[in-house]
Amino acid sequence: MVDNALVREVGLRDGLQMIGTFMPTAQKQQWIDRCCAAGFTELEVCSFVPTKYIPQFADAEAVVRHSRAKKGLVAATLVPNLKGAQRALEAGAGKLVCIISATESFSQANLRRSKRHSMEELTQIVRLRDEFAADHARVPIQVGISVAFGCPFEGQVADTVVCEAALAAVRFGADEISLADTAGQGDPAQVRRVFTILRKELPELGLSGHFHDTRGLGLANVFAALDAGVRAFDASTAGLGGCPNSPGATGNVATEDLVFMLEALGLNTGIDIRLLLEIRKFVRECLPGVHTSGHVGVVGLPKGFQPARLQNTHLEPAP
Amino acid sequence: MVDNALVREVGLRDGLQMIGTFMPTAQKQQWIDRCCAAGFTELEVCSFVPTKYIPQFADAEAVVRHSRAKKGLVAATLVPNLKGAQRALEAGAGKLVCIISATESFSQANLRRSKRHSMEELTQIVRLRDEFAADHARVPIQVGISVAFGCPFEGQVADTVVCEAALAAVRFGADEISLADTAGQGDPAQVRRVFTILRKELPELGLSGHFHDTRGLGLANVFAALDAGVRAFDASTAGLGGCPNSPGATGNVATEDLVFMLEALGLNTGIDIRLLLEIRKFVRECLPGVHTSGHVGVVGLPKGFQPARLQNTHLEPAP
Repeated sequence: MVDNALVREVGLRDGLQMIGTFMPTAQKQQWIDRCCAAGFTELEVCSFVPTKYIPQFADAEAVVRHSRAKKGLVAATLVPNLKGAQRALEAGAGKLVCIISATESFSQANLRRSKRHSMEELTQIVRLRDEFAADHARVPIQVGISVAFGCPFEGQVADTVVCEAALAAVRFGADEISLADTAGQGDPAQVRRVFTILRKELPELGLSGHFHDTRGLGLANVFAALDAGVRAFDASTAGLGGCPNSPGATGNVATEDLVFMLEALGLNTGIDIRLLLEIRKFVRECLPGVHTSGHVGVVGLPKGFQPARLQNTHLEPAP
Repeated sequence: MVDNALVREVGLRDGLQMIGTFMPTAQKQQWIDRCCAAGFTELEVCSFVPTKYIPQFADAEAVVRHSRAKKGLVAATLVPNLKGAQRALEAGAGKLVCIISATESFSQANLRRSKRHSMEELTQIVRLRDEFAADHARVPIQVGISVAFGCPFEGQVADTVVCEAALAAVRFGADEISLADTAGQGDPAQVRRVFTILRKELPELGLSGHFHDTRGLGLANVFAALDAGVRAFDASTAGLGGCPNSPGATGNVATEDLVFMLEALGLNTGIDIRLLLEIRKFVRECLPGVHTSGHVGVVGLPKGFQPARLQNTHLEPAP
């Protein structure tokens, strides 16, 4: 019995948001098409942030429209505020992603509002979504908690602080929680501890991990989260990304490295890694001069690699 | 009570062996001095391979002589055969490292002999060491098992194969065993499984892990080995290294990233990471044009970073 894991490609949002050159809509659509062909079932396709702040997402409506036509695909979109949520719902987004910060300093720097204000905004977005659900399908809301494992301004973040933020977000209406190591400051013991607490508090809650590989611990953190029972992870093709308000932050874990590790561990992602390596090539060609990372895309798969569905193994619990 | 971990710097051996330009002996000696000042207690300083094969190690005797004068330092040296062991013992090496391969194909490609022949060579080296110990301090022998978690020629390596090789090496006289993921083919579940078996079979045996970061799983594999109780790891400053007979293999985990992770986890390495980051700079200056890797050396330590000895945490077992 093969266990499954969900890999959420966030390259089109987190990966592109710091890239100044506009990626043509047709290329974004082709990226989405290729992801669907490779077996992805959830993509974060854009952000409904005002175009004056991030021109890269000027075509958010067109990108969502294209995505919603893909069968079996959840097209998630980041919504920074109520206005963005309105636009996303009208465009037909399949999931709304709202961000709150684990620390006050990062909240001010990244979102230009207090943590309390973020919760109020979340309440309004939940209400809007509920009204919208009267004559549309109910759109789930994921709350991403940034700097959950360390803050570039405040340093260490206590386990209780991030857990309380997550529990508050659920009380305010979040359907899912994602914990983000925004600036690559977390360590795997901490990641395992925090996710274990949350899984115990809310065993039915959809939980995912979003790890930047800033200090090389991205995949170690994924492995630690797996031990805590987490089975959904964000990643960005070719390790694209970063955070404009997080000094020193580099990209997400590379999707191809993450899929490789999960499949090697016996977790079925449903993703054809050979097609994924082609997507990496395509994305790099679309973004000449942009720094990329990732390992498997450079050295290839090891001899004898078998995807999880062809193995007879499953991930054993830690001793 | 802070738990300790041993980081063995192997940059002077594994890191340099593929670098064609000879690093002057004075620079190697300065590298060793700096490591001692930063708190390292064990270094793999050279290989006693014939100079005609790897000219980089032409000064092996001088390097060992310099190292043995450093108080509290174990100067380990790779010995490819009986002749090398003789030279190492005469030079005053503090530990001999013998390599055997988990697979027959890699044994032939890397060592140009069969696995059985390697065991015979090991027997002879053990005998030589014992004779030498009659009027010198007894020099421990570490056996490194290469391609323990996957072979570039044969693909997957069964857990039983590597465990049998390790147990055989111990029967033939090894004092310590190091398992090497030579080409970065292992996954953390496998690493945790194999080390758990060996720890159970030989609870008193010194065990260490040597992980190449070829596919980005180096630190995830370290974390997995920690779960199995392993507390000694090889690493190479700036991620130098590779293996001449292992296609696609890139460097070891970067020492600075490894020390960062271990200290963040609450494991005391005894190493001053700020001095280590200076060593990284020094080594990069000594080796212009050589590809390096590692993350912490690029982005620096996170705000609020505390070494293990100043924390109140310890590494908890997995849930």
